[in-house]
Amino acid sequence: MSQPVRIYGDRRSGNCLKVKWTADYLGLDYDWHEIDVVKGETRSDDFLAINPAGQVPCLERSDGRILAQSNAIIFHLARGSALIPDDEFDQAKMLEWMFWEQYSHEPFIAVRRFRKAFMNTPDEEIDPDLMAKGRRALGVMEMRLLSRDFIVRDQVTLADIALVAYTRVADEGGFDLDEFLGVRSWVARVEQEIGIDMDDGRMSPLG
Amino acid sequence: MSQPVRIYGDRRSGNCLKVKWTADYLGLDYDWHEIDVVKGETRSDDFLAINPAGQVPCLERSDGRILAQSNAIIFHLARGSALIPDDEFDQAKMLEWMFWEQYSHEPFIAVRRFRKAFMNTPDEEIDPDLMAKGRRALGVMEMRLLSRDFIVRDQVTLADIALVAYTRVADEGGFDLDEFLGVRSWVARVEQEIGIDMDDGRMSPLG
Repeated sequence: MSQPVRIYGDRRSGNCLKVKWTADYLGLDYDWHEIDVVKGETRSDDFLAINPAGQVPCLERSDGRILAQSNAIIFHLARGSALIPDDEFDQAKMLEWMFWEQYSHEPFIAVRRFRKAFMNTPDEEIDPDLMAKGRRALGVMEMRLLSRDFIVRDQVTLADIALVAYTRVADEGGFDLDEFLGVRSWVARVEQEIGIDMDDGRMSPLG
Repeated sequence: MSQPVRIYGDRRSGNCLKVKWTADYLGLDYDWHEIDVVKGETRSDDFLAINPAGQVPCLERSDGRILAQSNAIIFHLARGSALIPDDEFDQAKMLEWMFWEQYSHEPFIAVRRFRKAFMNTPDEEIDPDLMAKGRRALGVMEMRLLSRDFIVRDQVTLADIALVAYTRVADEGGFDLDEFLGVRSWVARVEQEIGIDMDDGRMSPLG
């Protein structure tokens, strides 16, 4: 008998929520296995046997095979759906923004939020580079969104899901989206289009 | 009349060399436009008009459309070739390792090499985290390569090209591949399979 798909993740992590939102949007059946990153559960022997890289999210398919890296997992889950453009160039452009997110956005915006909102590190003890580089990333997005409703073209794709994950909670990292109005309205558009619960992954639920 | 494909890149950058090697391996016709990162040429107005993110490599297609991010560019160039596995899970696994490379490998191994070999920063002034996390990344690769000739399966894919770029010159960043013998022999295998010139992108040519 085949097992259901299992997702290992921490619900406060944007990288993990990308997988949840994609699975929910596509109506996939899955079993969520909560892993607490702050308690060090990604470095336990049990978890390292699943993913030697010691990172969530992680997908365990019904055939037992394991897939890691949020953006690779959502690419795999969304094959054949409208979340991946048919056009080959658009698909490459979508991947461009997903790689950019992991290299030039997440390491500053998500990391500053982690320090500030999870670890309660005082602002003056947080590397000032994180604010500068995070703001730079938001500026690059703002330019891209000046003439577009979504990152790739005129409909939501995985690039929007990947980028919205930490952009929508950037305020928890001390970033002010009032300075990036194009980004702010895009966040609302993606949340609505994907059906993201506003409180998902927020340290301080909006009420 | 259509223009040839143009690649903007710095020949000392592993990210840029990934694109060169993939294009050469596939026998594609292109025109290489050298951009000197150290001289700040990626931040010039001319270049920012091409890629607002201010990063190389960058591909300008014959129709004028621009694609950035090394791993998205090689994915686009290699569509339909043996460098991308046909099997959907293997393809996702390939992307997993390409995302992992940009998040958990390049920021430590490439960055330490940049500090040490390009900027001539003395070891004691380099963040010790770069050595620790770079060694961790090499350890994760070593485990993966214990039972495999290549990263995904039994033949070379884009995941090998992406990962070999900075692993093969990790010694220039102060990493010792004699501690990771599986990785060391995989490097030689990939260089041979792809036809990489041993001196490509080395600060100190071996010859």
